[in-house]
Amino acid sequence: MDNTDTKIHGGGGETSLRQEDESDSDNKSGMRSAEAILRLLPVILCVAALVLMLKDSETNEYASLSYSKLGAFRYLVHANGICAGYSLVAAIIAAMPRPITMSQAWTFFFFDQVLTYLILGAGAVATQVLYLADKGDTTITWSSACDSFGGFCHKATASVVITFIAVLCYALISIISSYKLFTKYDAPLSTHL
Amino acid sequence: MDNTDTKIHGGGGETSLRQEDESDSDNKSGMRSAEAILRLLPVILCVAALVLMLKDSETNEYASLSYSKLGAFRYLVHANGICAGYSLVAAIIAAMPRPITMSQAWTFFFFDQVLTYLILGAGAVATQVLYLADKGDTTITWSSACDSFGGFCHKATASVVITFIAVLCYALISIISSYKLFTKYDAPLSTHL
Repeated sequence: MDNTDTKIHGGGGETSLRQEDESDSDNKSGMRSAEAILRLLPVILCVAALVLMLKDSETNEYASLSYSKLGAFRYLVHANGICAGYSLVAAIIAAMPRPITMSQAWTFFFFDQVLTYLILGAGAVATQVLYLADKGDTTITWSSACDSFGGFCHKATASVVITFIAVLCYALISIISSYKLFTKYDAPLSTHL
Repeated sequence: MDNTDTKIHGGGGETSLRQEDESDSDNKSGMRSAEAILRLLPVILCVAALVLMLKDSETNEYASLSYSKLGAFRYLVHANGICAGYSLVAAIIAAMPRPITMSQAWTFFFFDQVLTYLILGAGAVATQVLYLADKGDTTITWSSACDSFGGFCHKATASVVITFIAVLCYALISIISSYKLFTKYDAPLSTHL
């Protein structure tokens, strides 16, 4: 299981051992910083999407519309809030200069997967509501709302686009955490070359 | 990288080598069958969800409603069709008695991830439309459609529930394919214990 250790101890004399340890340490800190930055990015994106949506309300002569009137947008706000909070905690833990344990790797893997699905679902339903608000659906007598609430729809669209950039970050993060988890295991018998 | 090979050649005499090869071969075929079955399950689920939705139409004295009138349900039908087709091909390839190559592992990994996101998104938007069709939204004057089209809503709900069971299968499949891919790699330097 511990391939890197085997390799380091298997390499030449004490000098080469020290050199490998140094480059190992450099690599470690480089990878840690890269991961911490990638985990901080969704914090900014989710907070931006959340604030945009929270401040999104419009009143015209007929009615007043705000994000809280639509279930999908409320879900988007909650999902963005949860993701921002989790990403911040995860970034701090990932930045700590200590080796990751097996249970930490599993925890990261689990939550990264769940939150990727959560934020993707939130982005998808919000996109669907925006589409209906823009086009309407005559068969079931849903009229277009964006004709009367143009500003509201624009802000909501911006929030959804930012959410989807956060989804991309999360997809990447969940690949990284599954890489970090599963490289700790041996190859299954059915896949060895 | 090739941990299993090292282990087999490292073990005792020729007899133990043959025994290990036999149990290796049994394990291989067991894992292959399990994976093939897990990949066949979404074929059945997706086809069931697809057929239910395709046959879902209702006419009353006011209007006629079918899945094709709602963008989200059309997307659900397409997503289910794509997933059923992919899962069938993937199950056949996974069942073949030969070792998986690196490029195959990457291909499975990539498509499993993408299709998990695709079918999750389809399930999410369809759920959102069902929610709106059931409750309506008075602020933007969208009336409830399920009062007049109860049968349509019930069938659509069944289709969406089946889709979400397929999503669970896909989430599991994408974990398995990332396990099979990443166990082929060495542990990154920053995570070794």
